[in-house]
Amino acid sequence: MVGRQARQAGLSIVSLCRGGFFPGTDLATRQAAIDDNRRVIDEAAELGAPLVVLVCGAVPGQPLELSRQQINDGIAAVLPHAEACHVKLGIEPLHPVYADDRSAVNTLKQANDMAEALDSPFVGVVVDVYHLWWEPDLETEIKRCGQNDNLLAFHICDWKTPTEDILNDRGLMGEGCIPIGKIRGWVEAAGFDGFNEVEIFSTRHWAKDQQVFLREIKEAYLNYS
Amino acid sequence: MVGRQARQAGLSIVSLCRGGFFPGTDLATRQAAIDDNRRVIDEAAELGAPLVVLVCGAVPGQPLELSRQQINDGIAAVLPHAEACHVKLGIEPLHPVYADDRSAVNTLKQANDMAEALDSPFVGVVVDVYHLWWEPDLETEIKRCGQNDNLLAFHICDWKTPTEDILNDRGLMGEGCIPIGKIRGWVEAAGFDGFNEVEIFSTRHWAKDQQVFLREIKEAYLNYS
Repeated sequence: MVGRQARQAGLSIVSLCRGGFFPGTDLATRQAAIDDNRRVIDEAAELGAPLVVLVCGAVPGQPLELSRQQINDGIAAVLPHAEACHVKLGIEPLHPVYADDRSAVNTLKQANDMAEALDSPFVGVVVDVYHLWWEPDLETEIKRCGQNDNLLAFHICDWKTPTEDILNDRGLMGEGCIPIGKIRGWVEAAGFDGFNEVEIFSTRHWAKDQQVFLREIKEAYLNYS
Repeated sequence: MVGRQARQAGLSIVSLCRGGFFPGTDLATRQAAIDDNRRVIDEAAELGAPLVVLVCGAVPGQPLELSRQQINDGIAAVLPHAEACHVKLGIEPLHPVYADDRSAVNTLKQANDMAEALDSPFVGVVVDVYHLWWEPDLETEIKRCGQNDNLLAFHICDWKTPTEDILNDRGLMGEGCIPIGKIRGWVEAAGFDGFNEVEIFSTRHWAKDQQVFLREIKEAYLNYS
Protein backbone atom coordinates (compact mmCIF):
# COMPACT_ATOMS: atom_id res chain seq x y z
CA MET A 1 0.00 0.00 0.00
CA VAL A 2 2.84 2.35 0.79
CA GLY A 3 4.27 1.56 -2.63
CA ARG A 4 0.98 2.44 -4.34
CA GLN A 5 0.62 5.63 -2.31
CA ALA A 6 4.15 6.68 -3.22
CA ARG A 7 3.62 6.05 -6.92
CA GLN A 8 0.26 7.84 -6.89
CA ALA A 9 2.02 10.82 -5.31
CA GLY A 10 4.46 10.84 -8.22
CA LEU A 11 7.40 9.64 -6.15
CA SER A 12 9.98 7.09 -7.26
CA ILE A 13 11.11 4.56 -4.69
CA VAL A 14 14.82 4.17 -5.25
CA SER A 15 15.61 1.63 -2.56
CA LEU A 16 14.70 -0.01 0.68
CA CYS A 17 17.14 0.74 3.54
CA ARG A 18 18.11 -1.66 4.85
CA GLY A 19 19.10 -5.30 4.81
CA GLY A 20 22.38 -6.83 5.86
CA PHE A 21 23.89 -7.56 9.27
CA PHE A 22 24.93 -11.02 8.14
CA PRO A 23 27.80 -11.78 10.56
CA GLY A 24 27.15 -13.72 13.74
CA THR A 25 29.14 -15.89 16.08
CA ASP A 26 26.85 -18.90 15.65
CA LEU A 27 25.02 -20.55 12.79
CA ALA A 28 21.54 -19.86 14.18
CA THR A 29 22.20 -16.11 14.29
CA ARG A 30 23.54 -16.11 10.77
CA GLN A 31 20.56 -18.17 9.52
CA ALA A 32 18.15 -15.74 11.23
CA ALA A 33 19.88 -12.89 9.39
CA ILE A 34 19.47 -14.71 6.09
CA ASP A 35 15.77 -15.29 6.79
CA ASP A 36 15.36 -11.65 7.74
CA ASN A 37 17.01 -10.50 4.54
CA ARG A 38 14.66 -12.65 2.48
CA ARG A 39 11.75 -10.86 4.17
CA VAL A 40 13.36 -7.49 3.42
CA ILE A 41 13.62 -8.51 -0.23
CA ASP A 42 9.91 -9.41 -0.17
CA GLU A 43 9.09 -6.00 1.27
CA ALA A 44 11.16 -4.28 -1.41
CA ALA A 45 9.34 -6.25 -4.11
CA GLU A 46 5.97 -5.28 -2.63
CA LEU A 47 7.03 -1.63 -2.48
CA GLY A 48 8.32 -1.72 -6.02
CA ALA A 49 11.78 -0.76 -4.79
CA PRO A 50 14.41 -2.03 -7.21
CA LEU A 51 17.19 -2.13 -4.62
CA VAL A 52 17.86 -3.21 -1.04
CA VAL A 53 20.77 -1.34 0.55
CA LEU A 54 22.93 -3.63 2.67
CA VAL A 55 24.54 -2.40 5.87
CA CYS A 56 26.59 -5.53 5.99
CA GLY A 57 27.25 -5.96 9.70
CA ALA A 58 30.13 -6.78 12.05
CA VAL A 59 30.49 -8.43 15.42
CA PRO A 60 32.71 -6.65 17.96
CA GLY A 61 35.81 -8.76 18.53
CA GLN A 62 35.22 -11.12 15.63
CA PRO A 63 37.98 -10.84 13.00
CA LEU A 64 36.89 -8.52 10.20
CA GLU A 65 38.00 -10.98 7.53
CA LEU A 66 35.73 -13.64 9.06
CA SER A 67 32.83 -11.18 9.12
CA ARG A 68 33.48 -10.36 5.48
CA GLN A 69 33.36 -14.06 4.60
CA GLN A 70 30.04 -14.38 6.45
CA ILE A 71 28.72 -11.32 4.61
CA ASN A 72 29.73 -12.82 1.29
CA ASP A 73 28.08 -16.13 2.23
CA GLY A 74 24.93 -14.40 3.48
CA ILE A 75 24.51 -12.44 0.27
CA ALA A 76 25.10 -15.59 -1.77
CA ALA A 77 22.41 -17.36 0.28
CA VAL A 78 19.72 -14.72 -0.39
CA LEU A 79 20.75 -13.95 -3.95
CA PRO A 80 18.48 -16.51 -5.67
CA HIS A 81 15.50 -14.96 -3.86
CA ALA A 82 16.59 -11.46 -4.88
CA GLU A 83 16.91 -12.58 -8.49
CA ALA A 84 13.49 -14.23 -8.40
CA CYS A 85 11.98 -11.01 -7.00
CA HIS A 86 13.93 -8.78 -9.42
CA VAL A 87 15.35 -6.84 -6.48
CA LYS A 88 19.02 -5.87 -6.50
CA LEU A 89 21.29 -5.98 -3.45
CA GLY A 90 23.63 -3.03 -2.88
CA ILE A 91 26.71 -3.54 -0.71
CA GLU A 92 27.27 -0.22 1.05
CA PRO A 93 30.80 0.16 2.39
CA LEU A 94 30.68 1.99 5.71
CA HIS A 95 33.31 4.36 7.14
CA PRO A 96 35.98 2.55 9.21
CA VAL A 97 34.59 4.26 12.30
CA TYR A 98 31.75 1.70 12.06
CA ALA A 99 34.01 -1.35 11.70
CA ASP A 100 33.35 -2.52 15.25
CA ASP A 101 29.65 -3.33 15.02
CA ARG A 102 28.06 -2.06 11.80
CA SER A 103 30.12 -3.16 8.84
CA ALA A 104 33.28 -5.09 8.13
CA VAL A 105 33.15 -3.67 4.60
CA ASN A 106 34.88 -0.33 5.04
CA THR A 107 36.24 0.69 1.66
CA LEU A 108 34.89 0.84 -1.85
CA LYS A 109 37.75 -1.44 -2.82
CA GLN A 110 36.44 -4.13 -0.47
CA ALA A 111 32.88 -3.67 -1.73
CA ASN A 112 34.06 -3.90 -5.33
CA ASP A 113 36.02 -7.06 -4.53
CA MET A 114 32.96 -8.64 -2.95
CA ALA A 115 30.50 -7.60 -5.67
CA GLU A 116 32.83 -8.87 -8.38
CA ALA A 117 33.33 -12.18 -6.58
CA LEU A 118 29.56 -12.66 -6.26
CA ASP A 119 29.34 -11.85 -9.97
CA SER A 120 25.60 -11.32 -10.42
CA PRO A 121 23.65 -8.54 -12.13
CA PHE A 122 21.60 -8.47 -8.91
CA VAL A 123 24.55 -7.56 -6.66
CA GLY A 124 26.22 -4.17 -6.76
CA VAL A 125 27.55 -1.35 -4.61
CA VAL A 126 26.19 1.81 -2.99
CA VAL A 127 28.52 4.82 -2.92
CA ASP A 128 27.97 7.21 -0.02
CA VAL A 129 30.28 10.21 0.19
CA TYR A 130 30.09 10.25 4.00
CA HIS A 131 31.68 6.82 4.21
CA LEU A 132 34.17 7.06 1.38
CA TRP A 133 35.38 10.63 0.92
CA TRP A 134 38.70 9.93 2.68
CA GLU A 135 39.54 6.75 0.68
CA PRO A 136 42.96 7.07 -0.96
CA ASP A 137 42.08 5.55 -4.35
CA LEU A 138 38.46 6.63 -4.48
CA GLU A 139 38.43 7.87 -8.08
CA THR A 140 39.97 4.62 -9.32
CA GLU A 141 37.56 2.48 -7.32
CA ILE A 142 34.51 4.45 -8.50
CA LYS A 143 35.67 4.00 -12.09
CA ARG A 144 36.14 0.27 -11.46
CA CYS A 145 32.69 0.07 -9.86
CA GLY A 146 31.07 1.64 -12.91
CA GLN A 147 33.03 -0.41 -15.41
CA ASN A 148 31.71 -3.57 -13.77
CA ASP A 149 28.11 -2.24 -13.80
CA ASN A 150 28.10 -2.33 -10.02
CA LEU A 151 27.34 1.32 -9.18
CA LEU A 152 23.73 1.09 -8.03
CA ALA A 153 23.19 4.19 -5.89
CA PHE A 154 24.82 7.45 -4.82
CA HIS A 155 24.23 9.00 -1.39
CA ILE A 156 25.23 12.52 -0.42
CA CYS A 157 25.52 14.64 2.73
CA ASP A 158 28.51 16.32 4.38
CA TRP A 159 31.09 15.69 7.14
CA LYS A 160 31.04 18.40 9.80
CA THR A 161 34.04 19.63 11.79
CA PRO A 162 33.67 18.86 14.60
CA THR A 163 31.40 15.85 14.27
CA GLU A 164 29.76 15.65 17.66
CA ASP A 165 27.97 12.35 17.25
CA ILE A 166 29.36 9.74 14.95
CA LEU A 167 25.95 8.40 13.93
CA ASN A 168 23.62 11.37 13.85
CA ASP A 169 25.56 14.55 13.19
CA ARG A 170 25.78 14.59 9.41
CA GLY A 171 25.71 17.93 7.65
CA LEU A 172 23.79 19.40 4.74
CA MET A 173 25.84 19.53 1.57
CA GLY A 174 28.15 22.52 2.03
CA GLU A 175 28.25 22.34 5.83
CA GLY A 176 31.34 20.18 5.82
CA CYS A 177 34.58 19.18 4.16
CA ILE A 178 33.56 16.53 1.62
CA PRO A 179 34.36 17.38 -2.02
CA ILE A 180 30.88 16.22 -3.05
CA GLY A 181 30.92 17.82 -6.47
CA LYS A 182 34.23 16.20 -7.34
CA ILE A 183 33.02 12.77 -6.22
CA ARG A 184 29.73 13.24 -8.10
CA GLY A 185 31.81 14.00 -11.18
CA TRP A 186 33.66 10.71 -10.76
CA VAL A 187 30.38 8.85 -10.25
CA GLU A 188 28.86 10.37 -13.38
CA ALA A 189 32.03 9.73 -15.37
CA ALA A 190 31.67 6.09 -14.29
CA GLY A 191 28.31 6.00 -16.06
CA PHE A 192 25.93 6.49 -13.14
CA ASP A 193 22.82 8.43 -14.11
CA GLY A 194 20.51 7.78 -11.14
CA PHE A 195 19.42 10.03 -8.32
CA ASN A 196 21.65 11.89 -5.89
CA GLU A 197 20.05 10.59 -2.69
CA VAL A 198 20.32 13.03 0.18
CA GLU A 199 20.80 11.10 3.43
CA ILE A 200 21.32 13.33 6.45
CA PHE A 201 21.12 11.53 9.77
CA SER A 202 21.15 14.48 12.15
CA THR A 203 19.65 14.95 15.57
CA ARG A 204 20.15 18.68 15.05
CA HIS A 205 18.36 18.88 11.70
CA TRP A 206 15.62 16.46 12.77
CA ALA A 207 14.80 18.71 15.73
CA LYS A 208 13.79 21.62 13.51
CA ASP A 209 10.65 22.24 11.45
CA GLN A 210 10.88 19.56 8.76
CA GLN A 211 9.47 21.84 6.06
CA VAL A 212 12.35 24.20 6.78
CA PHE A 213 14.78 21.28 6.71
CA LEU A 214 13.36 20.18 3.34
CA ARG A 215 13.86 23.68 1.92
CA GLU A 216 17.41 23.73 3.25
CA ILE A 217 18.09 20.36 1.64
CA LYS A 218 16.79 21.61 -1.69
CA GLU A 219 18.87 24.76 -1.48
CA ALA A 220 21.98 22.82 -0.43
CA TYR A 221 21.41 20.37 -3.26
CA LEU A 222 21.24 23.15 -5.82
CA ASN A 223 24.32 24.92 -4.49
CA TYR A 224 26.85 22.38 -3.33
CA SER A 225 30.20 22.11 -5.04
CA MET B 1 65.29 19.51 33.57
CA VAL B 2 62.30 17.27 32.98
CA GLY B 3 64.58 14.98 30.98
CA ARG B 4 67.08 14.75 33.85
CA GLN B 5 64.32 14.16 36.40
CA ALA B 6 62.88 11.38 34.27
CA ARG B 7 66.25 9.68 33.83
CA GLN B 8 67.05 10.00 37.54
CA ALA B 9 63.71 8.34 38.27
CA GLY B 10 64.75 5.42 36.09
CA LEU B 11 62.30 6.23 33.31
CA SER B 12 63.05 6.04 29.61
CA ILE B 13 61.63 8.77 27.43
CA VAL B 14 60.46 7.07 24.28
CA SER B 15 59.12 10.03 22.38
CA LEU B 16 57.78 13.54 22.42
CA CYS B 17 54.12 13.82 21.37
CA ARG B 18 53.66 15.74 19.27
CA GLY B 19 54.83 17.64 16.20
CA GLY B 20 53.13 17.86 12.85
CA PHE B 21 50.09 19.84 11.66
CA PHE B 22 51.97 20.88 8.53
CA PRO B 23 49.07 21.67 6.13
CA GLY B 24 47.77 25.20 5.77
CA THR B 25 45.98 27.23 3.18
CA ASP B 26 48.72 29.87 2.96
CA LEU B 27 52.48 29.90 2.96
CA ALA B 28 52.78 31.86 6.23
CA THR B 29 50.76 29.23 8.11
CA ARG B 30 52.82 26.42 6.67
CA GLN B 31 56.08 28.23 7.48
CA ALA B 32 54.88 28.79 11.06
CA ALA B 33 54.24 25.06 11.34
CA ILE B 34 57.74 24.30 10.11
CA ASP B 35 59.23 26.73 12.65
CA ASP B 36 57.12 25.19 15.38
CA ASN B 37 58.27 21.69 14.47
CA ARG B 38 61.92 22.78 14.67
CA ARG B 39 61.24 23.96 18.23
CA VAL B 40 59.57 20.65 19.03
CA ILE B 41 62.68 18.87 17.76
CA ASP B 42 64.81 21.10 20.01
CA GLU B 43 62.62 20.17 22.97
CA ALA B 44 62.94 16.50 22.17
CA ALA B 45 66.71 16.82 21.99
CA GLU B 46 66.79 18.60 25.35
CA LEU B 47 64.57 15.90 26.88
CA GLY B 48 66.72 13.16 25.43
CA ALA B 49 63.69 11.85 23.52
CA PRO B 50 64.83 9.94 20.42
CA LEU B 51 61.55 10.45 18.55
CA VAL B 52 58.99 13.11 17.77
CA VAL B 53 55.56 11.67 16.93
CA LEU B 54 53.91 13.55 14.09
CA VAL B 55 50.16 14.10 14.02
CA CYS B 56 50.45 15.28 10.47
CA GLY B 57 47.46 17.63 10.14
CA ALA B 58 44.66 18.40 7.70
CA VAL B 59 42.61 21.45 6.78
CA PRO B 60 38.84 20.95 6.50
CA GLY B 61 37.84 21.32 2.88
CA GLN B 62 41.36 21.25 1.50
CA PRO B 63 41.92 18.21 -0.76
CA LEU B 64 43.58 15.41 1.21
CA GLU B 65 46.15 14.82 -1.51
CA LEU B 66 47.22 18.47 -1.28
CA SER B 67 47.51 18.19 2.50
CA ARG B 68 49.63 15.07 2.08
CA GLN B 69 51.96 16.94 -0.27
CA GLN B 70 52.26 19.75 2.29
CA ILE B 71 52.99 17.20 5.02
CA ASN B 72 55.69 15.62 2.89
CA ASP B 73 57.20 19.04 2.17
CA GLY B 74 56.99 20.10 5.83
CA ILE B 75 58.80 16.98 7.02
CA ALA B 76 61.43 17.46 4.31
CA ALA B 77 61.92 21.05 5.50
CA VAL B 78 62.58 20.11 9.15
CA LEU B 79 64.47 16.91 8.42
CA PRO B 80 67.97 18.44 8.32
CA HIS B 81 67.35 19.90 11.78
CA ALA B 82 66.09 16.53 13.06
CA GLU B 83 69.17 14.82 11.68
CA ALA B 84 71.47 17.42 13.26
CA CYS B 85 69.72 16.91 16.62
CA HIS B 86 69.68 13.10 16.25
CA VAL B 87 65.92 13.10 16.74
CA LYS B 88 63.76 10.85 14.56
CA LEU B 89 60.39 11.86 13.11
CA GLY B 90 57.56 9.33 13.27
CA ILE B 91 54.64 9.71 10.85
CA GLU B 92 51.59 8.45 12.75
CA PRO B 93 48.71 7.52 10.45
CA LEU B 94 45.43 8.52 12.09
CA HIS B 95 42.06 6.78 11.76
CA PRO B 96 39.98 8.09 8.82
CA VAL B 97 37.54 9.56 11.33
CA TYR B 98 40.21 12.26 11.83
CA ALA B 99 40.71 13.00 8.13
CA ASP B 100 38.82 16.29 8.32
CA ASP B 101 41.12 18.28 10.60
CA ARG B 102 43.79 16.11 12.24
CA SER B 103 45.54 14.05 9.64
CA ALA B 104 45.41 13.48 5.90
CA VAL B 105 47.56 10.38 6.48
CA ASN B 106 44.95 7.76 7.34
CA THR B 107 46.44 4.38 6.54
CA LEU B 108 49.71 2.63 7.25
CA LYS B 109 50.07 2.25 3.50
CA GLN B 110 50.06 6.03 3.07
CA ALA B 111 52.52 6.48 5.95
CA ASN B 112 54.81 3.83 4.46
CA ASP B 113 54.63 5.52 1.06
CA MET B 114 55.57 8.86 2.59
CA ALA B 115 58.37 7.53 4.79
CA GLU B 116 59.88 5.62 1.89
CA ALA B 117 59.69 8.67 -0.38
CA LEU B 118 61.47 10.80 2.23
CA ASP B 119 64.07 8.03 2.47
CA SER B 120 65.96 9.03 5.62
CA PRO B 121 67.00 6.99 8.66
CA PHE B 122 65.49 9.88 10.65
CA VAL B 123 61.96 9.44 9.24
CA GLY B 124 59.76 6.48 10.10
CA VAL B 125 56.26 5.47 11.14
CA VAL B 126 54.31 5.07 14.37
CA VAL B 127 51.84 2.16 14.50
CA ASP B 128 48.84 2.72 16.79
CA VAL B 129 46.28 -0.08 16.95
CA TYR B 130 43.45 2.40 17.57
CA HIS B 131 44.02 4.05 14.22
CA LEU B 132 44.90 1.02 12.12
CA TRP B 133 43.11 -2.08 13.41
CA TRP B 134 40.47 -1.97 10.62
CA GLU B 135 42.99 -1.55 7.76
CA PRO B 136 42.46 -4.28 5.14
CA ASP B 137 46.13 -5.06 4.44
CA LEU B 138 47.50 -4.28 7.89
CA GLU B 139 49.73 -7.34 8.27
CA THR B 140 51.34 -6.72 4.87
CA GLU B 141 51.88 -3.03 5.59
CA ILE B 142 53.39 -3.72 9.04
CA LYS B 143 55.79 -6.19 7.43
CA ARG B 144 56.70 -3.63 4.78
CA CYS B 145 57.21 -0.99 7.48
CA GLY B 146 59.62 -3.23 9.36
CA GLN B 147 61.50 -4.34 6.26
CA ASN B 148 62.24 -0.70 5.46
CA ASP B 149 63.41 -0.02 9.04
CA ASN B 150 60.56 2.43 9.46
CA LEU B 151 58.70 0.95 12.44
CA LEU B 152 59.65 3.39 15.18
CA ALA B 153 56.93 2.99 17.83
CA PHE B 154 53.92 0.87 18.78
CA HIS B 155 50.91 2.33 20.62
CA ILE B 156 48.17 0.25 22.19
CA CYS B 157 44.71 0.75 23.69
CA ASP B 158 41.28 -0.56 22.67
CA TRP B 159 38.22 0.48 20.64
CA LYS B 160 35.03 0.45 22.71
CA THR B 161 31.54 -0.38 21.44
CA PRO B 162 29.90 2.06 21.55
CA THR B 163 32.55 4.76 21.33
CA GLU B 164 30.83 7.75 22.87
CA ASP B 165 33.45 10.38 22.09
CA ILE B 166 35.66 9.98 19.09
CA LEU B 167 38.65 11.68 20.73
CA ASN B 168 38.53 10.73 24.38
CA ASP B 169 36.73 7.43 24.84
CA ARG B 170 39.49 4.92 24.25
CA GLY B 171 39.43 1.70 26.21
CA LEU B 172 41.92 -0.25 28.26
CA MET B 173 43.31 -3.24 26.42
CA GLY B 174 40.57 -5.85 26.60
CA GLU B 175 37.69 -3.37 26.87
CA GLY B 176 37.14 -3.36 23.13
CA CYS B 177 37.31 -5.17 19.82
CA ILE B 178 40.88 -4.64 18.63
CA PRO B 179 42.92 -7.82 18.12
CA ILE B 180 45.87 -6.23 19.93
CA GLY B 181 47.77 -9.46 20.49
CA LYS B 182 47.56 -10.39 16.84
CA ILE B 183 48.76 -6.97 15.72
CA ARG B 184 51.56 -7.03 18.31
CA GLY B 185 52.61 -10.37 16.83
CA TRP B 186 52.82 -8.82 13.37
CA VAL B 187 54.79 -5.86 14.76
CA GLU B 188 57.27 -8.17 16.52
CA ALA B 189 57.55 -10.39 13.44
CA ALA B 190 58.47 -7.22 11.55
CA GLY B 191 61.47 -6.81 13.85
CA PHE B 192 60.16 -4.26 16.33
CA ASP B 193 61.55 -4.76 19.83
CA GLY B 194 60.67 -1.47 21.53
CA PHE B 195 58.05 -0.63 24.11
CA ASN B 196 54.33 -1.26 23.88
CA GLU B 197 53.22 2.29 24.66
CA VAL B 198 49.83 2.42 26.34
CA GLU B 199 47.96 5.51 25.15
CA ILE B 200 44.43 5.78 26.50
CA PHE B 201 42.78 9.13 25.91
CA SER B 202 39.67 8.74 28.04
CA THR B 203 37.57 11.26 29.88
CA ARG B 204 36.11 8.34 31.81
CA HIS B 205 39.43 6.86 32.92
CA TRP B 206 40.98 10.27 33.59
CA ALA B 207 38.14 11.06 35.99
CA LYS B 208 39.07 8.23 38.36
CA ASP B 209 41.88 7.89 40.90
CA GLN B 210 44.97 7.81 38.69
CA GLN B 211 46.73 5.24 40.88
CA VAL B 212 43.78 2.95 40.28
CA PHE B 213 43.93 3.72 36.57
CA LEU B 214 47.65 2.89 36.56
CA ARG B 215 47.00 -0.49 38.23
CA GLU B 216 44.25 -1.19 35.70
CA ILE B 217 46.61 -0.35 32.86
CA LYS B 218 49.24 -2.71 34.26
CA GLU B 219 46.71 -5.50 34.68
CA ALA B 220 45.27 -4.94 31.21
CA TYR B 221 48.77 -4.90 29.76
CA LEU B 222 49.61 -8.25 31.36
CA ASN B 223 46.34 -9.87 30.28
CA TYR B 224 45.36 -8.60 26.86
CA SER B 225 45.17 -10.96 23.94
